Amino acid sequence: MPTRPAGGSVVLLSGGMDSATCLALAARDRPPVHALTVVYGQRHLREIRSARRLGRRYAVARHIVLDLPLGPLLDSALTRSGRPLPGARRRRGSIPTTYVPARNTILLAVALGYAESEGCGAIYYGANAVDYSGYPDCRPEFVRAFARLARLATRAGVEGGRTIRVVAPLLHRSKGDIVRLGDRLGVPWELTWSCYAGGERPCGQCDACRLRARGFRQAGRTDPLVPGLRPGSRRSA
Amino acid sequence: MPTRPAGGSVVLLSGGMDSATCLALAARDRPPVHALTVVYGQRHLREIRSARRLGRRYAVARHIVLDLPLGPLLDSALTRSGRPLPGARRRRGSIPTTYVPARNTILLAVALGYAESEGCGAIYYGANAVDYSGYPDCRPEFVRAFARLARLATRAGVEGGRTIRVVAPLLHRSKGDIVRLGDRLGVPWELTWSCYAGGERPCGQCDACRLRARGFRQAGRTDPLVPGLRPGSRRSA
Repeated sequence: MPTRPAGGSVVLLSGGMDSATCLALAARDRPPVHALTVVYGQRHLREIRSARRLGRRYAVARHIVLDLPLGPLLDSALTRSGRPLPGARRRRGSIPTTYVPARNTILLAVALGYAESEGCGAIYYGANAVDYSGYPDCRPEFVRAFARLARLATRAGVEGGRTIRVVAPLLHRSKGDIVRLGDRLGVPWELTWSCYAGGERPCGQCDACRLRARGFRQAGRTDPLVPGLRPGSRRSA
Repeated sequence: MPTRPAGGSVVLLSGGMDSATCLALAARDRPPVHALTVVYGQRHLREIRSARRLGRRYAVARHIVLDLPLGPLLDSALTRSGRPLPGARRRRGSIPTTYVPARNTILLAVALGYAESEGCGAIYYGANAVDYSGYPDCRPEFVRAFARLARLATRAGVEGGRTIRVVAPLLHRSKGDIVRLGDRLGVPWELTWSCYAGGERPCGQCDACRLRARGFRQAGRTDPLVPGLRPGSRRSA
């Protein structure tokens, strides 16, 4: 395998607000950008369409949409259509049923292989630990452990040279901060998608819809996907 | 998601000698066994057939053969049929072209999700650092880093309780030791497959064939797949 310069980045692009903001950051700071969208059996395929539109908007060097049929393997309400989605009354501090076992570890592992194959020096990962959904694999200690693994798992871990960095620029930002940052970067929010429910319009009830609404509310602006919902028109979740 | 007892194990079962020995160990020490075989675009699909036969022989509780189409994404002679396989003249200490970027990280990540979904307390991983092929993701420091990640990446990392162990029982054994251990456990070597070349008979030339031959030679016995090759009939590689 030829040794390539460690330029460019791989962005894990789900199609949601956070990964769209990561895409905008990577396009500004670490071009060329290789986008990676993984279809892992999730119910909300609508977000895959958003990911494709975002990739086109940012004219990424390559956008791989990878079909990983993990549904039969992983036990989660996100991948099993018979399971109810959690609503607003979930106990604080518990892990919601939308948690997909080891999903982010799997996505990062695939991104690592992609980055090493393309000679990219960074993976952009939109994990968020402030307004996070209670997932273990969105915490800073998880990101650090994966970054350490990435150093050891690849060629550079044996042969030396530049390792692949794990960049998680949203880790310590609130959803409101993310909306403000995205606004400054010009993120096209109308192309993003957050709702878990799988419909053509956001359900407004699931965790993802509630976090998204909170972000726009905190930033004092209207979500173009929910134009009727003005800032301050709902109480804080 | 219900909390299940941390019993049983997931075995990463490629169909080779090392994973077959891991399967025998897991069946003895950590039943029920869930086998996981990943078809990631490798050229040697013959080993998948071996994995299926081994799963049946050991009557595993469940054998998932997962199709992960990583070929277009990962740059390797194992997944790109136009690339030559490395022969005996490879420079010592270099990483061979059969290295698949982050492959073992990806396989372990999927195994982690499977183990968490099934409530298993251990993943058996047949990495070998003694007669290893120079892959960064077969080294003890890689295994330790993944074990640490596994503790942080899963429910137990947030909620407490038993974490999923990464068991790598062959890490410090020579290929000869592995053949001797497998013999004691009754591993059906005739069902295993090692050759990378993709033919119906072992090529005898690739890294995997050479390591396998060395193992049987060191253990002083004949490989049932290569009955003409008696111990001592070839010089040490």
